[in-house]
Amino acid sequence: MDDAGQIQMNREIPAKSLKTPTTVSPELQRSISGMAAAAAAGGGLPVGWAPQNAAEWKAVIAQMDAQALSVAPAIKAMFPHTSELRQIAGVTVREITPSTLDPAKAGKLLVHFHGGGYVLNGGEASTGEAVLGAHYSGMKVISVDYRMPPEHPFPAAVDDAVAVWRVLRADRPAAAMGAFGTSAGGGLTLALALKLKELGETLPGALALGTPWADLTGASDSYQVNAHVDGIFSNFDGFGKGMAELYAGAAGVTHPLVSPVFGEFSGFPPTVFVTGTRDILLSDTVRVYRAMRTAGVTARLEVHEAMSHAEYIYAFDAPESAVAFQDIAQFFDEHLKG
Amino acid sequence: MDDAGQIQMNREIPAKSLKTPTTVSPELQRSISGMAAAAAAGGGLPVGWAPQNAAEWKAVIAQMDAQALSVAPAIKAMFPHTSELRQIAGVTVREITPSTLDPAKAGKLLVHFHGGGYVLNGGEASTGEAVLGAHYSGMKVISVDYRMPPEHPFPAAVDDAVAVWRVLRADRPAAAMGAFGTSAGGGLTLALALKLKELGETLPGALALGTPWADLTGASDSYQVNAHVDGIFSNFDGFGKGMAELYAGAAGVTHPLVSPVFGEFSGFPPTVFVTGTRDILLSDTVRVYRAMRTAGVTARLEVHEAMSHAEYIYAFDAPESAVAFQDIAQFFDEHLKG
Repeated sequence: MDDAGQIQMNREIPAKSLKTPTTVSPELQRSISGMAAAAAAGGGLPVGWAPQNAAEWKAVIAQMDAQALSVAPAIKAMFPHTSELRQIAGVTVREITPSTLDPAKAGKLLVHFHGGGYVLNGGEASTGEAVLGAHYSGMKVISVDYRMPPEHPFPAAVDDAVAVWRVLRADRPAAAMGAFGTSAGGGLTLALALKLKELGETLPGALALGTPWADLTGASDSYQVNAHVDGIFSNFDGFGKGMAELYAGAAGVTHPLVSPVFGEFSGFPPTVFVTGTRDILLSDTVRVYRAMRTAGVTARLEVHEAMSHAEYIYAFDAPESAVAFQDIAQFFDEHLKG
Repeated sequence: MDDAGQIQMNREIPAKSLKTPTTVSPELQRSISGMAAAAAAGGGLPVGWAPQNAAEWKAVIAQMDAQALSVAPAIKAMFPHTSELRQIAGVTVREITPSTLDPAKAGKLLVHFHGGGYVLNGGEASTGEAVLGAHYSGMKVISVDYRMPPEHPFPAAVDDAVAVWRVLRADRPAAAMGAFGTSAGGGLTLALALKLKELGETLPGALALGTPWADLTGASDSYQVNAHVDGIFSNFDGFGKGMAELYAGAAGVTHPLVSPVFGEFSGFPPTVFVTGTRDILLSDTVRVYRAMRTAGVTARLEVHEAMSHAEYIYAFDAPESAVAFQDIAQFFDEHLKG
């Protein structure tokens, strides 16, 4: 018992061997089995390990970004688009125009923030999800290549997001613009909206948060329940915690613009959430969803069977990926005005 | 590889010790720790065990129903109500009238189906959730004490549900009535609506499905991922599978009125789902939710942090329980007409 007379008892879970479920599409089964095979072969970063200095961070970032970029040709072939490199308010962005551009939505625009723990997926590796979002929505997407550690910890990413947002907003109504992103990109989408609210500025017309990294303290229950279960973000301890601390820097991981689960969401625009039952950020996602519902925000929660963290981006040939992005596109169609 | 050249690779999860998370209320923490303590003490049914004949089933049913009934006084004290025993179409029901009855909703009625794997929680043990539903909605609830195995396997429960429904519907519009239930009660709510659709009869105005037992074949991914993690329904193998087969009988577990995940949901009324991140039926829940969305049904999904299967019924002093039932009450307020 603790001081309050509360029992604090751990729950012991025996080792288990998870089959690839038959309840998902063959394509998603292939993704799940492929990740299991990679884990069995000892692939990925060592459990519990994190870089110890800027040089080690840069080496692992370069290696992982190259790996992320290796799928770009397959995405390009399946989702034809053009990508134009631009600078907005001094921030590097890529303007993604899908070949499926819907002229009826020409007045609307999506703003995208890539994932990767505020550390990975910078540069050309940043746009995979933006391309999928553009394809399924038929809308132009501005994908923000925000500054990141080790050189640029918090609040650089939030500052870049706000700076780009202000320029885009000068040209069109805020209500015509949606913001979206997955993982750290979902967290940064939340941080942008919290910061705009703090500044008394107009928020986007709607948000789409893919398995948002909302609690960088590691307290969410799914960090333990889905540890090793999630095939993409398999452990918070080690590399995940290292990214959290590298990003937060002096502000600390409990700052509400670093860990938006500690934010206050009244007045937020309609928001859709996407996660999966194997997602290590399942709890981060449902906790923010619940906080928004409590604050009276129009919110929708989508949870996909057997899906790991952000797997709808990587298993982009799976029908579940199409459904995830179609849900987001439909939500923007319902809520953006322009 | 299998015949289709598909990799089938298991994912190995090491043993783990789950802390009680700090991300839920003190009351829910107490519930989670209490279940962990009971598991550590060797409480509950032996893993993998199921009764082998009717006499063994009856013995374990009597023991577990007595345990369920032991919390009735605490529920009665916290949620004052009257319970009137009635017969409708030859089926035993209990009419629950909460002390919080809202006269503005006098034209509306809720119909409740209890959980317990189609085997447990018959008789006086059946009404705990009905009382909570009545309290938080301010509405009268008819709780159906449907026939169960070992004497009465499928389709007795569905037949009883349809028979009661027809009598209630003769007195008021179907659109003024909501149907709800948890676990097997959620599965039976689905089976009732599927059967009414098959018969060409009018469906309820709205449904509330608490962690519905929708796939009695055991294929859902959360059966393996949340095995041992869930503090209430900890393992499908053994007792769970035994209940499934005892209930299904000759119809088999793939019959869509036994495992409604195999049903077709077009034309269904608005439906709200409630589950938790530790729920062994998380996958059953999200799979039916997704099938309804695909069928164009208005559906809402609520997932509670760190909650086990149906824990919102048992941890009825937790604020999370109140939120779960308030969500359901609000959903019925929005969608029932009468």
